[in-house]
Amino acid sequence: MSPFTAPVELSRAYRLLTHGPTVLVSARHAGVDDVMAAAWACALDFDPPKLTVVLDKASRTRELIERSGRFAIQVPTVAQLGLVNHVGNHSLHEQPDKLVQAGVETFDLDGKDLPLVAGCSAWLACELIAEPHNQSVHDLFIGEVVAAWADTRVFRDGRWHFEDADHSWRSLHHVAGGHYYAIGEAIE
Amino acid sequence: MSPFTAPVELSRAYRLLTHGPTVLVSARHAGVDDVMAAAWACALDFDPPKLTVVLDKASRTRELIERSGRFAIQVPTVAQLGLVNHVGNHSLHEQPDKLVQAGVETFDLDGKDLPLVAGCSAWLACELIAEPHNQSVHDLFIGEVVAAWADTRVFRDGRWHFEDADHSWRSLHHVAGGHYYAIGEAIE
Repeated sequence: MSPFTAPVELSRAYRLLTHGPTVLVSARHAGVDDVMAAAWACALDFDPPKLTVVLDKASRTRELIERSGRFAIQVPTVAQLGLVNHVGNHSLHEQPDKLVQAGVETFDLDGKDLPLVAGCSAWLACELIAEPHNQSVHDLFIGEVVAAWADTRVFRDGRWHFEDADHSWRSLHHVAGGHYYAIGEAIE
Repeated sequence: MSPFTAPVELSRAYRLLTHGPTVLVSARHAGVDDVMAAAWACALDFDPPKLTVVLDKASRTRELIERSGRFAIQVPTVAQLGLVNHVGNHSLHEQPDKLVQAGVETFDLDGKDLPLVAGCSAWLACELIAEPHNQSVHDLFIGEVVAAWADTRVFRDGRWHFEDADHSWRSLHHVAGGHYYAIGEAIE
């Protein structure tokens, strides 16, 4: 955990996702950690904050979430592009040392027993709101955000500061097949 | 309809939303058209393409969607910032001439009987997949995309070309309270 990691008020946690970044999803169950990339994650409610994320049935991370009932969503940066592509294109099913290969380092925060990915700009600890129909028919998972943190070098005072931060902190917005856009300039 | 409006293959329609833009949602029922802004819209499936969008119970657009069973999602641009803020901050319930006040011009395409907002970069015609539990408990609506179009000046050959287009074509990514980021540069 970096000295720049600070809690985000739950009433403002939706701001971590409202601009539509590609995220990393992580989970832990019975001593197994996994991390995957997901472009289809979205805020769902303000307070208590909730979010949706689409998780393919083939992913090991999904299985860990279904078993543990919790997961973390984190916002990766331009500096982590290689890591994001690696965890997005490899499954723990076929590459047991996937996280090492991807260069993922994780840390725990606040007793949440979730593998949080170091180097991200924000982290949201979620409890799964079980919705079996959505999960099986639509691959759609709903989480309630129970804690959130951000790196104060790019998110502080309840909002993003991409415009003041080094470019490497910009969020990634996936298009298809390893092509992304970085978030751009502030518009008022 | 502009001469630059061209169909997008349904198998690539997810690419219109995967980078996480704020969208406009429009609908028509019994001669009433409405348009609202929504930051919480997300791709849900590839083929057939589906998407989710969160619609507040207070919005008239939601009511039109529930009655007509269809809606359009469109991707507005930096050039449309004033329009997006207007339709996002006013309700047709209180401002009957909201669309005129916002400067919204609409057009029809392909017999879909949906008010498509002129000047956007992309349009997705959707049929509501009725999920009463999601709609009432989570304000979450699921649509199947039945047709999609884009402005070829910024989306062609199945992908965005923000980097070659005028800056005014960039998508908007809402943060909170009228603050947005534009999409930035391509990252490979």
